[in-house]
Amino acid sequence: YVLKSDPCGRCLILNNVNFSQDSDLSTRDGSDVDCKKLEKRFKALGFDVLTRRDLPAQKMVSELQELAQQDHSALDCCVVVILSHGCQTSHIQFPGGVYGTDGKAIPVEKIVNYFNGSHCPSLRGKPKLFFIQACGGEQRDRGFVVDGDSPGDEAPGGSLESDATPFQTPAGNVDQPDAVASLPTPSDILVSYSTFPGFVSWREASSGSWYVETLDSVLEQYAHSEHLLNMLLRVANAVSAKGRYKQIPGCFNFLRKKFFFRCK
Amino acid sequence: YVLKSDPCGRCLILNNVNFSQDSDLSTRDGSDVDCKKLEKRFKALGFDVLTRRDLPAQKMVSELQELAQQDHSALDCCVVVILSHGCQTSHIQFPGGVYGTDGKAIPVEKIVNYFNGSHCPSLRGKPKLFFIQACGGEQRDRGFVVDGDSPGDEAPGGSLESDATPFQTPAGNVDQPDAVASLPTPSDILVSYSTFPGFVSWREASSGSWYVETLDSVLEQYAHSEHLLNMLLRVANAVSAKGRYKQIPGCFNFLRKKFFFRCK
Repeated sequence: YVLKSDPCGRCLILNNVNFSQDSDLSTRDGSDVDCKKLEKRFKALGFDVLTRRDLPAQKMVSELQELAQQDHSALDCCVVVILSHGCQTSHIQFPGGVYGTDGKAIPVEKIVNYFNGSHCPSLRGKPKLFFIQACGGEQRDRGFVVDGDSPGDEAPGGSLESDATPFQTPAGNVDQPDAVASLPTPSDILVSYSTFPGFVSWREASSGSWYVETLDSVLEQYAHSEHLLNMLLRVANAVSAKGRYKQIPGCFNFLRKKFFFRCK
Repeated sequence: YVLKSDPCGRCLILNNVNFSQDSDLSTRDGSDVDCKKLEKRFKALGFDVLTRRDLPAQKMVSELQELAQQDHSALDCCVVVILSHGCQTSHIQFPGGVYGTDGKAIPVEKIVNYFNGSHCPSLRGKPKLFFIQACGGEQRDRGFVVDGDSPGDEAPGGSLESDATPFQTPAGNVDQPDAVASLPTPSDILVSYSTFPGFVSWREASSGSWYVETLDSVLEQYAHSEHLLNMLLRVANAVSAKGRYKQIPGCFNFLRKKFFFRCK
C-alpha cells in the first residue's frame, strides 16, 4: 500500500472512561492517557484525528457509521481505535465485543463490517485498520514459565486494572451480528486486539494500558522503517513479557500488502 | 523464533477427498494435488511429515490429539494442515469449521486449542502453525472493481469447484466448542485461512486449490529469505487477484516474533 494523500486518512478514537451506574462497569482510569498518546501519535503519522469520549453504544455506532459513510476518495486509508471495557462474544468472523458507557456491547465484527467493500465503497482496496484496547473476556492468565524465556514475575502495581467486566456475563447485552450473510468482499482489513479472545487486558491508572503504551512506543520507534505487521509482532512480544498476569495481543489480518505509515 | 532442531518439527496433513454419501458433500477433486505439494514442501523445509487421507471427524480429532500429546521437547515448532470442506461456525476465538468425511464438522478453534500452552506443554513458547484450506461458508464473492487494481475477470475453468457445502446448513452438525473458559495462555499460534470467514474457497480439479497452489509457490520462492507473515501477504495478494469469484486468504496471528523456516 502506498500512502500519498495528505492527510493520509481519518482516524476515529472512541474513548470510554465513565460508565453508567447500572452497567456495573468500573471507571477506566488511565484511558485518557492512552487516548492522548494515540491522538498525538496518529496526528504525527499524518491522520486527521477525531476523538469522542464516553459514548453509549448507540452513539458509538452512529459515529462509526458516519465515518464509514463519508467520502474517503481523496484518502488512502482509515483507522478506528476503541478504548473501552470489552467482553467475549460468539461471532462468525471477528471475535469480541466492546461496551458503550450504557453497558451495552457492540460486536467487533459489526464495527468492522461498516467499513467493508460494500458498506464503504470509497475505502475499497484501501487499508482499514482497527485497534481494540478492551478485554476479550474475563480470564486472567497467570501464564507459564518457558525455559530461557521467563515471563517476569514482578507483582503488578496497586493500580493495575483490567478491562474485564467483573460481575456479569455479557450475553444478554450483546447485539447479534448484523446479517453477515450478505457481506461482500472483506479484503484490506486488519484488526489488532490488545488481548487474545476470551482474556483480560491490563491497564494501569497512571500509564494507561499495557497494549496502548507499547503500541505507541513501537510506532514512535519503528513507524518510519518497519511495516505494520512487523511492528505488531514487537508489540505482542513486549506485552507478553510483562507482569504477573499474562496478556498476548494479536491481530486478524486480511491486508494484502505491507502497510507502511507515511512519516514526515 | 530460531529453528535449530532437525527435524524442526512435526507436520500433520489431514486430506479429506471422499465424503460419505449421506453427507451431501462432493468429492474434493484436486485435493490430492494440494496434499502432495505440501507434503513435499514441508519435508524440504525440514519437517517430519505425516499425512492422513479421508478421515471422519472423530478420527481427525484422534490424530490431532495424538499429535498434541506427543513429546515435542526436542522440536522447535509444529504444523497442522487441514484440506477439506468447511463451514461457517459461531465461535469465541477462531472462526470456521472443517468437515470429517462423515459430514460432521470440527470447529477450528477446537483444533487449535489442543495445541495451546496447557494442553500441549512441550510446545509452549514455540510456534504452532495451522493452514486451513476449506470454505469459511457459502458466500460467493463477485468482488468489486478497484481503480488501478483490476481483479481480473477471466472466467474460471469448467473444473472450478468450491469447498463450500452446497445443499445444507451445517449448524446441526457442528460440535460445540469445548470449555474454552478454562483455556490458558494461547500465545505463539498462527492460523492461516484460505478464505475470509463466511466465504467460499476455490479449487480446480487439475491444479488444486488457489490457496495451496499459491502458498506452495510462495514458500518455494521466498521461504529462504522472508518471514512467514510477509509470505502470507504475498499469498493473500496473489489469490485475491485471481478469477471471477473473489477470495481473500487471511491469518489470525498470535505469534510474538518473526517466523523464518529453516531452509537447507
